Amino acid sequence: MTESWATSFGVDLHLELADGGLRSGLMDALREAIRTGRLTPGTRLPSSRSLAADLGIARNTVADAYGELVAEGWLTARQGSGTRVAQRAAPRKAAAPAAPRSRPARRRPQYSLMPGTPDLGTFPRAEWLRAARRALTAAPNEAFGYGDPSGRVELRTVLADYLARARGVHAHPDRIVICSGFAHGLMLMAQVLRARRAREVAVESYGLDVHWSLLTERGLRTRALPLDELGTDTRGLDREGAVLLTAAHQFPIGVPLHPDRRSAVVDWARATGGLVLEDDYDGEFRYDRQPVGALQGLDPEHVVYLGTASKSLAPGLRLAWMVVPDGLVAEVLAAKGAMDWVCGTPDQLTLAEFIASGAYDRHVRGIRLRYRRRRDQLVEALAAASPETAVSGIAAGMHALVELPGGMERPVVQAAAWQGLAVEGLARYRHGTAPGAGRDALVVGYGTPPESAWHGALDALCRALP
Amino acid sequence: MTESWATSFGVDLHLELADGGLRSGLMDALREAIRTGRLTPGTRLPSSRSLAADLGIARNTVADAYGELVAEGWLTARQGSGTRVAQRAAPRKAAAPAAPRSRPARRRPQYSLMPGTPDLGTFPRAEWLRAARRALTAAPNEAFGYGDPSGRVELRTVLADYLARARGVHAHPDRIVICSGFAHGLMLMAQVLRARRAREVAVESYGLDVHWSLLTERGLRTRALPLDELGTDTRGLDREGAVLLTAAHQFPIGVPLHPDRRSAVVDWARATGGLVLEDDYDGEFRYDRQPVGALQGLDPEHVVYLGTASKSLAPGLRLAWMVVPDGLVAEVLAAKGAMDWVCGTPDQLTLAEFIASGAYDRHVRGIRLRYRRRRDQLVEALAAASPETAVSGIAAGMHALVELPGGMERPVVQAAAWQGLAVEGLARYRHGTAPGAGRDALVVGYGTPPESAWHGALDALCRALP
Repeated sequence: MTESWATSFGVDLHLELADGGLRSGLMDALREAIRTGRLTPGTRLPSSRSLAADLGIARNTVADAYGELVAEGWLTARQGSGTRVAQRAAPRKAAAPAAPRSRPARRRPQYSLMPGTPDLGTFPRAEWLRAARRALTAAPNEAFGYGDPSGRVELRTVLADYLARARGVHAHPDRIVICSGFAHGLMLMAQVLRARRAREVAVESYGLDVHWSLLTERGLRTRALPLDELGTDTRGLDREGAVLLTAAHQFPIGVPLHPDRRSAVVDWARATGGLVLEDDYDGEFRYDRQPVGALQGLDPEHVVYLGTASKSLAPGLRLAWMVVPDGLVAEVLAAKGAMDWVCGTPDQLTLAEFIASGAYDRHVRGIRLRYRRRRDQLVEALAAASPETAVSGIAAGMHALVELPGGMERPVVQAAAWQGLAVEGLARYRHGTAPGAGRDALVVGYGTPPESAWHGALDALCRALP
Repeated sequence: MTESWATSFGVDLHLELADGGLRSGLMDALREAIRTGRLTPGTRLPSSRSLAADLGIARNTVADAYGELVAEGWLTARQGSGTRVAQRAAPRKAAAPAAPRSRPARRRPQYSLMPGTPDLGTFPRAEWLRAARRALTAAPNEAFGYGDPSGRVELRTVLADYLARARGVHAHPDRIVICSGFAHGLMLMAQVLRARRAREVAVESYGLDVHWSLLTERGLRTRALPLDELGTDTRGLDREGAVLLTAAHQFPIGVPLHPDRRSAVVDWARATGGLVLEDDYDGEFRYDRQPVGALQGLDPEHVVYLGTASKSLAPGLRLAWMVVPDGLVAEVLAAKGAMDWVCGTPDQLTLAEFIASGAYDRHVRGIRLRYRRRRDQLVEALAAASPETAVSGIAAGMHALVELPGGMERPVVQAAAWQGLAVEGLARYRHGTAPGAGRDALVVGYGTPPESAWHGALDALCRALP
């Protein structure tokens, strides 16, 4: 049952969905599978969440399709037993062909400009596979064993070189700890800070609440520092255990931290023994000049550098890296745990080979061009559609801040939804303790849409603006 | 610097080491690299731990090589700055060629029969790469996104089918949670149990202390149940939150849980609301008859099944799976965390394709034959070398229990060390609260050595026996 689901049936679904409306395509495919007996009576269907994830479509689309097929008698849905193919569904329905109905469709977001995810269509599958072949062929047998909690030495060695070259990071393989995403690294640092009896971490006025939650769940209060046109103002730092900063390109405001502020925060760390946690999420993407080097280069003994493959390659790799002060390596590894938290060897070795072969540099150059082109098109389109609208934070990264007149943020997000566009307002990213007044703006993740949907998304955005 | 280390230099090391003594081969390779300028003065070498992990040799071998090269003036070692190539090392030493010295070498374990790791040379690299190519070519773009904390639906779907077929597990993709190793799954269950206010988990008299520690570190006491020839006696179970069992093949004693005991423990779980945590670490490896089906099949609502690719494929994949009761899925996912703890997509998709294509079944059949042959050779060799020695636990798995006369365990482990063989005594696996008297025995992991070292390891074992 499950096997046919995964193979022939799953593949059919993909093909069908490519051609037509999502909900009706899915319904047709399911009816067909039941009719031909590929899905037999009683078979339990994947949850709408699972199937939606599999097909890369909205969960509600699947839930709607299921709901209609239940109404049609093809499926049954019962609390606790999930959605199943109805007993003798096929014969009963064969007598009553379901005519296509045209009921008023609720509008679902067709486009997304939510920040945080790169265009997943850019993942360099063929190059990745070539790197995998070279890496796995050359790997010593011990690579397939339990492994080093710091991560594979091949990857740490290549990263030390790459980060020094591309980001000015003072790195050495022994200081690098591979983790399964930025959030994993932040969790480890939260554990280390708690073990050192820290009680508070200073954060920026704007950021991601999931990151703040990772800290508070581990017993660390978060308090927001003020933000101005020079970036986050760290003068108010006191005895916090650490400060979390997106120094190269503040997320989501987009301003880089001013050089004076960079020195000041390092001075604070030296004076108090606090740590700077540098979230270098999109450090490779700067368009108008060379990337700003990592803050970590200023003082490798007080700055923990956190980088990730999630923006430059794909979040699905779940590969990120920390460069930690020498004296902190043992504590971070203790937090990581000796037994587990190790990322899979094949993906680690492949990334090492991907970087060492130059494919990573080529890939980053390629997508940097793509995102820069999108950024230029965004600026142009907004200038044409809404000349008084200011766009900022565009020197780097994959998102821009589109300023709105006071009070307009929620109406514009709502208008965008009516245009079939999911986009987020700035308020969503504001810390509860952020000082000063909020600003009205949209955070436009122009890196997110697939190439085919980019212009449609842009048009929808322009129509939603005042 | 780091780049040359990883590529040309690292590769040279591998080649050199294959041919001769490990320490002297490493020293020659390092001298050569310094002499030719591939390693320049001041270059910091990887820590002995990193390099040892990279080369798959003992850390002490690297430390010894470093120590001798320091003594010879090639390297310098300073507290806090690591081991570096000495300034002007090459010219100075060129004048004084280091003659090979023959000092009495301390004996290092040349062979290992430590249980827990499969023969890493069996990892099917070519087949794995073929599966990777098919999987990554066919994957939808969304597969490269942040992903589902339960794991990829493709893998869960294929596993549901496989586990039902191969292990009698009552599985559905929605009940499966992919994790990065058995220990990760156990950690998640510990969190779930703590959130349910459980205080104690019953464990077997023998097992792995790292697993017990994972529980106690999360606030759960562990108490050992008695063990006899029918397996773990669960009659003493009371109000514990859970019991952790290796039902199919007790680790390390090797006895399967008697059918009456299987029913009894499920009855206990039903009556008290407790959970059975089934560690099915080597369920695929049974030699004399069909594998005993998983306990989970008896009562999927009270048994959490934990399986892993660590024994059947390689620990380096860091891929394992839990099949959890329907009502527990949300709690396990909450423990896993919404943001992270997700294994990398490429490895997950590749494993799904590897299983779906039949390559996994073929691979398991192949290594089952290999381990069975080794088991037979072990039994034969022991019968010839030490006729009164009883071997047990050999119906399944990759390790055997070699019984020893009372008081002989430590002397035999010591004698093995003198034969260049690392092997573990049973005492190492005994829980502090295990009732009754301990037994003297060796736990012989015959799956561990590479094929080339197997007969040498076996000879060393036989020489060490009384």
